[in-house]
Amino acid sequence: MNRFSLNHATTKHWDVFEAVEACARAEIGIGLWREPVADKGLEATAARVRDSGVTVTSLCRGGFLTTGTREALDDNRRAIDEAATLGTSELVMVCGGLPSGSRDLDAARETVAEAIAELAPHAAASGVRLAIEPLHPMFASDRCVISTLDQALDLAERFPATTVGVVVDTYHIWWDPTVWSAIERARGRISSFQVADWSTPLPAGVLTGRAQLGDGVIDLRRFRHAADAAGYDGLVEVEIFNDALWARPGAEVLAETLKRYAEHVA
Amino acid sequence: MNRFSLNHATTKHWDVFEAVEACARAEIGIGLWREPVADKGLEATAARVRDSGVTVTSLCRGGFLTTGTREALDDNRRAIDEAATLGTSELVMVCGGLPSGSRDLDAARETVAEAIAELAPHAAASGVRLAIEPLHPMFASDRCVISTLDQALDLAERFPATTVGVVVDTYHIWWDPTVWSAIERARGRISSFQVADWSTPLPAGVLTGRAQLGDGVIDLRRFRHAADAAGYDGLVEVEIFNDALWARPGAEVLAETLKRYAEHVA
Repeated sequence: MNRFSLNHATTKHWDVFEAVEACARAEIGIGLWREPVADKGLEATAARVRDSGVTVTSLCRGGFLTTGTREALDDNRRAIDEAATLGTSELVMVCGGLPSGSRDLDAARETVAEAIAELAPHAAASGVRLAIEPLHPMFASDRCVISTLDQALDLAERFPATTVGVVVDTYHIWWDPTVWSAIERARGRISSFQVADWSTPLPAGVLTGRAQLGDGVIDLRRFRHAADAAGYDGLVEVEIFNDALWARPGAEVLAETLKRYAEHVA
Repeated sequence: MNRFSLNHATTKHWDVFEAVEACARAEIGIGLWREPVADKGLEATAARVRDSGVTVTSLCRGGFLTTGTREALDDNRRAIDEAATLGTSELVMVCGGLPSGSRDLDAARETVAEAIAELAPHAAASGVRLAIEPLHPMFASDRCVISTLDQALDLAERFPATTVGVVVDTYHIWWDPTVWSAIERARGRISSFQVADWSTPLPAGVLTGRAQLGDGVIDLRRFRHAADAAGYDGLVEVEIFNDALWARPGAEVLAETLKRYAEHVA
């Protein structure tokens, strides 16, 4: 269990201080989100993290770059700074969907590439890696025009592996017939390995359809073995957006998730 | 407009006789479904089709092969016979999701390949092509383990192009960064070119989220040009599962869809 990290979004009822404290007690890592960090204050949260000794595996999230605006770039520079302050080297990037009114996927993808190029120097200087996360193709229009791991790698490989990495999230890529070679190709660039299970029917809007480990159809352990084989030796972040989980107390969700992790991932 | 074909599932309120009659009046093609055909009787429907002179662009659907049962194979042999009786050479195959309790996508995909190999001789002898349809990855667990056009082609290319083809459906593959080369690769194997638009938010269960042409984000005309460039000169089937469309009278839906087709596809 010493590779387990709790993505804060899994236990929505905890504020970030409560989540950090719980992870410290359980001797596990944590994945943070910008909004709950801002709620408690960046410096105050960073101090809590340092005092607790908890490893921050990633900060969610930068991205939403397809508008190509200066505002978006500035916000991402702030996100890079926040990651550095919180002591994590990995900033998860959800790159954004099609700009309003556009049907031009190629253009949106090129805008993302240009924005990453603009952000890379500041990331490198800050010791923070931009972790490009391919999202499931069902999010291609409204959240992320980067849909496969190979596509994320095509983009990441334009930059040094220490500056731009990729997120391997089982929920988003489990269906991909080319996923195993893509994970091997990601060697040295895996910024974050995230796990959640896939089950149907999907809820309206599909965002909160991620399933508890073992409640779905993904061969999660095969993915962990593949990430291991590609040289990934960091923590494994569990990130589950699920209305039923969110309705339960954080401690109960964490206990169940640790158990499921042992059964299906470890 | 002489390339337009109405997939019957777009106008749910019409029975198959009404749909055939409307397509004859509009001088367009039709894509049929097995269940409404069975409701009116196979031979009776075939006679109506012949009398009307309407072109049947495809029969939906065979498939659901991942269980690997004799029952599934027998049902597909019947579907091949029905396609031949209805005078269409293209049987759309929705290959099936993961068998209940399974997490083994590779095995399910191999079971599909074995089933196609079993069915191919009967299809060839009947003058019917098995049209493998890649479905959007959001259906990978429960409807179709074939998720990309390249994957469908990997399977189809084990067989003669006259026996096993592929369906190019904009809704399922629009997000794929490799789709343009895949459509070119499909030259000679495009059994059916289907159009529907993509919009969000998706409804619960996601099945009825297909959008009217022009109501979403897909560059539909680019897809038609790509299919044309790959040598496809058949009819273009419009297939939209959408609760709001289904609530409206068939004639109204057809009129709107013809108009949208002219604006966004033709």
